[in-house]
Amino acid sequence: MASTILPLELVDRCIGSPIHVVMKNEREFTGTLMGFDDYVNMVLKDVKEYEVTPNGVVETDLGQTLLNGNNIAMLIPGGRGPNA
Amino acid sequence: MASTILPLELVDRCIGSPIHVVMKNEREFTGTLMGFDDYVNMVLKDVKEYEVTPNGVVETDLGQTLLNGNNIAMLIPGGRGPNA
Amino acid sequence: MASTILPLELVDRCIGSPIHVVMKNEREFTGTLMGFDDYVNMVLKDVKEYEVTPNGVVETDLGQTLLNGNNIAMLIPGGRGPNA
Amino acid sequence: MASTILPLELVDRCIGSPIHVVMKNEREFTGTLMGFDDYVNMVLKDVKEYEVTPNGVVETDLGQTLLNGNNIAMLIPGGRGPNA
Amino acid sequence: MASTILPLELVDRCIGSPIHVVMKNEREFTGTLMGFDDYVNMVLKDVKEYEVTPNGVVETDLGQTLLNGNNIAMLIPGGRGPNA
Amino acid sequence: MASTILPLELVDRCIGSPIHVVMKNEREFTGTLMGFDDYVNMVLKDVKEYEVTPNGVVETDLGQTLLNGNNIAMLIPGGRGPNA
Amino acid sequence: MASTILPLELVDRCIGSPIHVVMKNEREFTGTLMGFDDYVNMVLKDVKEYEVTPNGVVETDLGQTLLNGNNIAMLIPGGRGPNA
Repeated sequence: MASTILPLELVDRCIGSPIHVVMKNEREFTGTLMGFDDYVNMVLKDVKEYEVTPNGVVETDLGQTLLNGNNIAMLIPGGRGPNA
Repeated sequence: MASTILPLELVDRCIGSPIHVVMKNEREFTGTLMGFDDYVNMVLKDVKEYEVTPNGVVETDLGQTLLNGNNIAMLIPGGRGPNA
Repeated sequence: MASTILPLELVDRCIGSPIHVVMKNEREFTGTLMGFDDYVNMVLKDVKEYEVTPNGVVETDLGQTLLNGNNIAMLIPGGRGPNA
Repeated sequence: MASTILPLELVDRCIGSPIHVVMKNEREFTGTLMGFDDYVNMVLKDVKEYEVTPNGVVETDLGQTLLNGNNIAMLIPGGRGPNA
Repeated sequence: MASTILPLELVDRCIGSPIHVVMKNEREFTGTLMGFDDYVNMVLKDVKEYEVTPNGVVETDLGQTLLNGNNIAMLIPGGRGPNA
Repeated sequence: MASTILPLELVDRCIGSPIHVVMKNEREFTGTLMGFDDYVNMVLKDVKEYEVTPNGVVETDLGQTLLNGNNIAMLIPGGRGPNA
Repeated sequence: MASTILPLELVDRCIGSPIHVVMKNEREFTGTLMGFDDYVNMVLKDVKEYEVTPNGVVETDLGQTLLNGNNIAMLIPGGRGPNA
């Protein structure tokens, strides 16, 4: 049987690696995970924000960013964002 | 009388099996359940996302994904998604 | 005076019986209650989903399903759904 | 000075009596209160639901019903609903 | 320096007096405060409800009413409602 | 280095002084802060409410008012409201 | 391996420095961080508010401001706002 992976274990494995984050308000981010806490508030660096607009996906570079955990809908380890 | 099944028991039985997840914001996912915690945050692999758009259901492959438990509306063990 | 019934007592009495569930996002379900926990997360089997659309109520068979308790608006023991 | 009435005291006095319940999503119900818990989840019998639609208020008989306390906006002891 | 008034002190002083309550969903009420609890769930009597509609403010008499504290946006001691 | 100011310290310093409050539902208030509790529920006096309408900002005098802390988006010590 | 940074550590490092804050209701602020608490309620000085309107981004100077932590979506240390 495939080994079980707990959610915080998965996040912990992502430290230092790229990750794709989708927020509840549909904003999306990619970046390298620098750290997180029990509420899954997350510190990312080299962050790119993707905003879906009527004219397509707008990308913005943000550098280092702290994301509020209770606003996160899902995480995709190694994900390269909606345009990938 | 049919035996009672507690919610977390049902989720636990799904580890290693396909599952269909419907979020509160109407996004839907299928994948194989790898693990979960007490808040029913869930780690899935081989994930497919289904987004209902005016032009029908758009499917996206996501690979391994962590879903935020407080955003989940319902789980269908063995479910194969909205197109099934 | 009619005897008092506590909410979780009522739910407990429904185990093994049909129940109609209305969610906060207006989705409705019928099915047989298999189990529940203190947060009234509920396991149902033989589940039918009812979605109100401009062209009337669309029914979908889901089999066994786990519903997130904090998304439930109301429960109708023995209820046979919106088309009944 | 008028005697003070605590909220749960008021609800307790309503057991066995008619009550009008308005939910946060604007759905309204009348029925006889059978019981409630500390979260003011409520069991009602002989329940009538009132849904405000463009063509006026639609009434539906539901029989016995459990209402989720965190979705309740207000209670009117002895209230006979929006058409009264 | 003006003496400090704590929120629950202010509510306590209003017992037996008229009060104007504005809910988060924009419904407004006036009435006499009969009692409240730590969650500021409130029992009012001689209650009048004010609903802002396209054709102006509609007033409805409700008698005794229990308001859910977590749905209250603000309280105006002695307030006589939006038409005052 | 500028001295650090903790949120509740800042609010405490405002007691007896004018303050501008912006709620999550975009309603705005000015008034003199009389007191507050750990949830930042706030008692204000000489309160003016500002409602942004299609025809500009409508001001209403409310006198003494209690604002629900969990509905507050931000506080501006000494602020004189949106028209200042 | 890059050193891990915990969310509250990152915020702590920002004290006395410029920071860009994006709220859940899409309002944005820049200012110098003066202090914060465990709920990430934040005290900022020299605050500028950015509101996205049909006619572009409107900037308003607010001076010292307290932001409610549970309304914050994300923080960008050293960020100079949406027009940068």
